[in-house]
Amino acid sequence: MSGLLHQPHHGGSAHHVGTDPAHAAPVPTLGERVRVRVEVPHGAGVDEVHVRTTPDTEPAFAPARRVLRGAAVDLWEADVEVVNPTSRYRFLLHGSGGQRWLTQVGVVDHEVADAWDFALVATPPPPAWAADQVLYQIFPDRFARGAERVDWPAWAEPAAWDEPVATTFPSSMRQLYGGDLLGVTKRLDHLLRLGVTGVYLNPVFPAPENHRYCASDFTTVDPLLGGDEALAELSAALHANGLRLIGDLTLNHSGDQHPWFRAARAHPDGEEAGYYLWHDRPGGRAQAWAGVPSLPKFDHRSSALRRHLYEGPDSVAARWLREPFLLDGWRVDAANVAGRSGALDLAAELQRTLLATMHEARGTDVYLLAEHCHDATGDLQGAGWHGTMDYLGFTRAAWSWLQDPQRSVDALGMPVPLARRGGAAVARGLDLVRGQLPWRSVVHSLSLLGSHDTARWAAVAGDRARRHVGLAWMLTFPGVPSVYYGDELGLGGDSNEAGRAPMPWDRPERWDQDTLAFVTRLVHLRRASVALRRGGLRWVVTDEDQLVYLREHPDERVLVQLTRAAVDPVDLDAPLLHLADGDAAPALLDHPPLAASAGRLRLPGGDGSVARVWRLPPTSYPPLEVPRR
Amino acid sequence: MSGLLHQPHHGGSAHHVGTDPAHAAPVPTLGERVRVRVEVPHGAGVDEVHVRTTPDTEPAFAPARRVLRGAAVDLWEADVEVVNPTSRYRFLLHGSGGQRWLTQVGVVDHEVADAWDFALVATPPPPAWAADQVLYQIFPDRFARGAERVDWPAWAEPAAWDEPVATTFPSSMRQLYGGDLLGVTKRLDHLLRLGVTGVYLNPVFPAPENHRYCASDFTTVDPLLGGDEALAELSAALHANGLRLIGDLTLNHSGDQHPWFRAARAHPDGEEAGYYLWHDRPGGRAQAWAGVPSLPKFDHRSSALRRHLYEGPDSVAARWLREPFLLDGWRVDAANVAGRSGALDLAAELQRTLLATMHEARGTDVYLLAEHCHDATGDLQGAGWHGTMDYLGFTRAAWSWLQDPQRSVDALGMPVPLARRGGAAVARGLDLVRGQLPWRSVVHSLSLLGSHDTARWAAVAGDRARRHVGLAWMLTFPGVPSVYYGDELGLGGDSNEAGRAPMPWDRPERWDQDTLAFVTRLVHLRRASVALRRGGLRWVVTDEDQLVYLREHPDERVLVQLTRAAVDPVDLDAPLLHLADGDAAPALLDHPPLAASAGRLRLPGGDGSVARVWRLPPTSYPPLEVPRR
Repeated sequence: MSGLLHQPHHGGSAHHVGTDPAHAAPVPTLGERVRVRVEVPHGAGVDEVHVRTTPDTEPAFAPARRVLRGAAVDLWEADVEVVNPTSRYRFLLHGSGGQRWLTQVGVVDHEVADAWDFALVATPPPPAWAADQVLYQIFPDRFARGAERVDWPAWAEPAAWDEPVATTFPSSMRQLYGGDLLGVTKRLDHLLRLGVTGVYLNPVFPAPENHRYCASDFTTVDPLLGGDEALAELSAALHANGLRLIGDLTLNHSGDQHPWFRAARAHPDGEEAGYYLWHDRPGGRAQAWAGVPSLPKFDHRSSALRRHLYEGPDSVAARWLREPFLLDGWRVDAANVAGRSGALDLAAELQRTLLATMHEARGTDVYLLAEHCHDATGDLQGAGWHGTMDYLGFTRAAWSWLQDPQRSVDALGMPVPLARRGGAAVARGLDLVRGQLPWRSVVHSLSLLGSHDTARWAAVAGDRARRHVGLAWMLTFPGVPSVYYGDELGLGGDSNEAGRAPMPWDRPERWDQDTLAFVTRLVHLRRASVALRRGGLRWVVTDEDQLVYLREHPDERVLVQLTRAAVDPVDLDAPLLHLADGDAAPALLDHPPLAASAGRLRLPGGDGSVARVWRLPPTSYPPLEVPRR
Repeated sequence: MSGLLHQPHHGGSAHHVGTDPAHAAPVPTLGERVRVRVEVPHGAGVDEVHVRTTPDTEPAFAPARRVLRGAAVDLWEADVEVVNPTSRYRFLLHGSGGQRWLTQVGVVDHEVADAWDFALVATPPPPAWAADQVLYQIFPDRFARGAERVDWPAWAEPAAWDEPVATTFPSSMRQLYGGDLLGVTKRLDHLLRLGVTGVYLNPVFPAPENHRYCASDFTTVDPLLGGDEALAELSAALHANGLRLIGDLTLNHSGDQHPWFRAARAHPDGEEAGYYLWHDRPGGRAQAWAGVPSLPKFDHRSSALRRHLYEGPDSVAARWLREPFLLDGWRVDAANVAGRSGALDLAAELQRTLLATMHEARGTDVYLLAEHCHDATGDLQGAGWHGTMDYLGFTRAAWSWLQDPQRSVDALGMPVPLARRGGAAVARGLDLVRGQLPWRSVVHSLSLLGSHDTARWAAVAGDRARRHVGLAWMLTFPGVPSVYYGDELGLGGDSNEAGRAPMPWDRPERWDQDTLAFVTRLVHLRRASVALRRGGLRWVVTDEDQLVYLREHPDERVLVQLTRAAVDPVDLDAPLLHLADGDAAPALLDHPPLAASAGRLRLPGGDGSVARVWRLPPTSYPPLEVPRR
């Protein structure tokens, strides 16, 4: 029997927090009292539960009440007053089992810093649809051609759609296939069949390299992509089909061909010189992203720059949210370094200003994602970004656990190959990293298996079975799944450049139809499951070769079993899962259903990489009280 | 053999960081490259070491070089560029032992958030003397009478020096024994014999309660204590003997008898009404510390208030640092909540402004301590307070491990008795809490066993042997030891009020001379030992009933063994301690010396609570390069 279910448990979702269950994370307001619930299995040695809050950082305790004595699990409840915009809490467990803290990282028998506390965030929430998304990431030059291109720019190395992708600099940056936004619109049927709910579009601004992160203008769509009109049309087509569209905005730097930078170079005393950071003197040697001279870094102390980019209704950040483009949000490129340089740190102000601008343009119906290639903890505490591209809190975990054991995988920017870790270490890392974020930031971050900045998931996983386990993980885990175009076909590519190959529309032999069917099925499964979209997370098994977790929502529960190698059957204590003998758990993929029997729920073993998903009946817990507004 | 020494190790002190060894923590400046060193025991399975930094929060890796192949331990070195005021780093270990992170919390085989990184802090450093202090805390009304008091104030309940201390409200606040500052000056010989290096003095401002945290004036010393002149005399006497003097300043609130608050009440439209935070309307119901109406909370948005209290040369914070008072620093009362109220959080600005004012008044030769009764992690990252009163990072650990097993101890504000924890859980908690702070903030925080806000250590520990183990722990551990007046005599008191009994100068039968001798010896030991004052910390044994640690400095190493119950002898692997057979470790207290033999260093067992301290010869490591200025 797994021991994890015997631990007291609380999570940030509506399963344990009195909040509007139409949101994946609580949406409290300042001054409210929010009901929180702890599940305490019998035998855990807990005689008292207290909630500890830290209003204005001063610890305060309040006793929890035992509101339900269940057959195997008791419920305790307490109220947390939302005194601060980010109000933290954890639980003190006391009794014959000793004295322990129930934190977001787990139950521990030692002191911890407050960073492990649960957190209720009362800043304006992300829109309710954001956490319900399954995004599809499109790299515009490589997804689809809508128009035949004749006017290739001088910098480009034009490529036929079938040509191999260039993986070495500078061709990797100059090779242009001529994908465009009309192409995306034309291929909308593919997205609709797949079932994704939104598109995350890499940059569309004019730029002299194929990735377009070196913008030479933020105010028009690259004519190579079809210009403003093509974006408006794509947006309209997506919205007409109920899909969202997230843009990609670089606030850290422009390209060195941007007129601002040219002006700054030409007129060191001019206004534009103040838009950039310089190593020596204005107009001299510019600070640059990763030291790449073509990507000069902005100086956010310039109010003129801020107004151009993200402060106020005339800014770039605002205008693309409005008619006729109606972007539903931004993914901000290099968000971690934007506004930061040595002793200068304007990142908090940048985030606050950008959010205010977006809210002014569209109310709170906008989603704000930050690229952060490692740990975004400090920027995700509730005042800024809604979420991050969660390479640390998801991608690295999935890669570590499921990578091809036969080969060495580039470890997302590390100087050594990716570690191959067992399930316990992977779950521990996930808990530690995600456990330091408000649940709101967890569920609004992207769970991705790859992107334009990484090798392709298929290349990392190596075989189809492992690949499918990873896809199932992403699509059943907390966090917004993001499918990198072509991953649904099993496309390969062992580097970020190699992964940017054009979508092989006319090469059916490159389509892994099994993978396409599997992803399609899981996308639809997630969309249909409130537990998968908005439920909490509870680990059930974290063994070397097996991860099992519950997604729990007041209206539904889902049990997910992932294996990467041969495992024996595991018996779970059915009463701890609120299952009586005979209670059935229908299978949601192609595998047998489960039923509780003799107080146990037996998870099947197996001899390879398998993903199994079952729907469990909801608990019979009384509904949690939700603050009245 | 203990396994901890087989782990790769790095710490924040000059033993592992190229820095001026006259400081307990690195004193880098922005832009410098600082050499850092990792010890890698043979057999740890490490073939590569890389340092990971996060300049402007962007991860960057650089390989470390193996600079020394030792008999049992190799040294690897790398450079960390101090790009940001707080520059973080950790190490990636790669090889046959797998892939691990060497963090400040320990060596782990899973992902972690950056909060566990080591940190170099380039903000103006605390003075070099600060971490060398052994402070002695004096509660002025209870330490010593210098003058016979005749003019008792109306609010007071005058008490004879021998009278029992009142422990119930309101007498607990009104009982006045008439201790004064002249009394402290007259008893200076006691402090000199004890060997302490500085005094932390509870508030001396006029106030209508005996603790004086409800100031009715910040510009004069309470005449009951002898007025300004008595403070100037005490300061002169201390300084003439090489001792420092730290004052106590409340920036969160005044007393309700303060003329500002009276004016605010009388004139809701006047300037003073803006000095305070109100629940309803100016002049109405004031926000108050812990809801106590006599302690109305300041509104730090008022620039007039800031100028009065801590902004600029005319402020309270500045004037007491100057002639003739020459305080060497401030302990800021209720520092965690000062400037914080709901959505308003001016704590960072408060700290920055206060530090600037103090630096303007006295250069960087001032020490700034914050009271924080729980986790100060967020406020100790380098930009504000130099340190905290480390109840979480020391007091709770010592209390948990060494409390009297026969009775229940109040757990520092918790609703349940203090947990009794084993050594492993205690060390884990210490590592987790301290591991999220820059080493600079660790060594400048107070390691205290008790204060005016807690029960007395003697009452917590219960018997003398455990009490001595705790005192030895405090006096040999990183962090500034702070002896609460009378703890050196073994005074009891099972609550904060009961612990505020007058110093029994004329009751020798209440003096535990063994404890006095023990503390005196340890204070002098610490003062004479650069390893104890400025060395790193390395755990050697963390068993249920035994904690063993090394304090390491380039010039000296000290080994400390603490037990709380019977333990068996433990063999340490001598080569891992850089000891050859025959190398001797003289005992520094009354216990046998050690010598390495047959590759082992045998720590004695025993059957009770014992503290043993040995001096180990320094390692023969080549000196670490220190940046040239």
